[in-house]
Amino acid sequence: MNKAQLIHNIRQKKSFLCVGLDPDINRIPIKDGTPAQRILAFNKAVIDATRPYCVAYKPNTAFYEMYGSEGWQALEETVAYIGDDHFIIADAKRGDIGNTSKKYAAAFFESLDADAVTVAPYMGSDSVMPFLGHTDKWVVLLGLTSNQGSNDFQMQRLSSGKFLYEEVLQTASRWGTPENMMFVIGATHPESFGDIRKILPDHFLLVPGIGSQGGDFEAVCKYGMNADVGLLINVSRGILYPPNDGDWVGAIRGEAKRYRDKMAQVL
Amino acid sequence: MNKAQLIHNIRQKKSFLCVGLDPDINRIPIKDGTPAQRILAFNKAVIDATRPYCVAYKPNTAFYEMYGSEGWQALEETVAYIGDDHFIIADAKRGDIGNTSKKYAAAFFESLDADAVTVAPYMGSDSVMPFLGHTDKWVVLLGLTSNQGSNDFQMQRLSSGKFLYEEVLQTASRWGTPENMMFVIGATHPESFGDIRKILPDHFLLVPGIGSQGGDFEAVCKYGMNADVGLLINVSRGILYPPNDGDWVGAIRGEAKRYRDKMAQVL
Repeated sequence: MNKAQLIHNIRQKKSFLCVGLDPDINRIPIKDGTPAQRILAFNKAVIDATRPYCVAYKPNTAFYEMYGSEGWQALEETVAYIGDDHFIIADAKRGDIGNTSKKYAAAFFESLDADAVTVAPYMGSDSVMPFLGHTDKWVVLLGLTSNQGSNDFQMQRLSSGKFLYEEVLQTASRWGTPENMMFVIGATHPESFGDIRKILPDHFLLVPGIGSQGGDFEAVCKYGMNADVGLLINVSRGILYPPNDGDWVGAIRGEAKRYRDKMAQVL
Repeated sequence: MNKAQLIHNIRQKKSFLCVGLDPDINRIPIKDGTPAQRILAFNKAVIDATRPYCVAYKPNTAFYEMYGSEGWQALEETVAYIGDDHFIIADAKRGDIGNTSKKYAAAFFESLDADAVTVAPYMGSDSVMPFLGHTDKWVVLLGLTSNQGSNDFQMQRLSSGKFLYEEVLQTASRWGTPENMMFVIGATHPESFGDIRKILPDHFLLVPGIGSQGGDFEAVCKYGMNADVGLLINVSRGILYPPNDGDWVGAIRGEAKRYRDKMAQVL
């Protein structure tokens, strides 16, 4: 999916919601079958319930890999089930030397046919470049993540005075364009969005950390939006595991709709 | 496998060679079957040929994931075929927020039953900690990698005067112990091994970059070894794809033995 199509979908649905597909076997209400079967059945129910309210899905590869090749098959079937109308982000946090990143790009863009893959920046340019240059495929590079550990290295001051994550955003934004790169910026750092928009005025930002991690939705929208909307706000656990009175599908649908309604107001 | 067992194996075999299992379908000489079948047959031949000369194997997950669930199954069967006598490093470069890293730990230590997994440090402590605390299982954290892109961020000077990678080594070495953590240090930076040993006197270092990437074997041994040997030198393409006159298994065996003989001399 290209940028114009993504923006079109956002405007049409009045939503910039990304639903994170992190199926935790200990929390999913489907109890019959193998773990991989239960994951796939749960995902299909989640996708059916949330389709109208979101523009993107983000399966997190860890939750599939832990069930080995059967888990990976559930990932493949999940991506196929989503189809072409939603932007699909393989949340894989990959990145390796050039000849290896090229294989990861084949894994996620050809074998799995996701639209985007999350990539870690630590190994630098030649670990990221092989993911670029695939038509209508995207790198979503880690910038400033939502977790506590983001303070350990990302918030280190460089001798230039910049934070490491600022250097990453600035340097890496030159490797691609706003048509093939996005950046992960956690909602738990709402105070940083203004400065980040000075570095990245035109890029989409993938924003985790709303929901279970306690990020501030309003502040993220206020300081993070640009003329193209420019945000994909991800919610995983906050949508997948709502309190419910037995009608868990209805509860999931209700949560997704609630986020969409908040987004429609902002748009 | 614990540290004492690893050191025992190194002393007994007079080898600290790790064979990287990066089966590239365009280069492997087995032509019959599906990609996953060809990969598995090639890996088995490589393992049979190199078993006596190495102490570790390092399958690189990208080369398997690019064939989806079938590729992942070839990875599982490869790990099972290696067995318990060799140290198995899943070269996966994972790392995510805590609840996700916990799932990756389950994927690589329980489902796949590798001894170690490579982890990227960018997301900080809570992205690494869930991999620690599994008995006789190891994190191999990226420190200073072998690729050109290691200059982009790892070699950035912090305001403290340290390089970023030095800060990573120093900080992360406090998260675990030399009994459950190793660090990746590329052989393409031989001049750095002396300084790195001041920060990490007791840790094992996993050293890629010898062979195809042109790292300096003698310098790495001279400046990198410690009282426990403390090095696992990885060779992937340099062993998997040697020039051969048709006897490719013999050529692979010959390359592995050549590295072992060089190591026996140093020991």
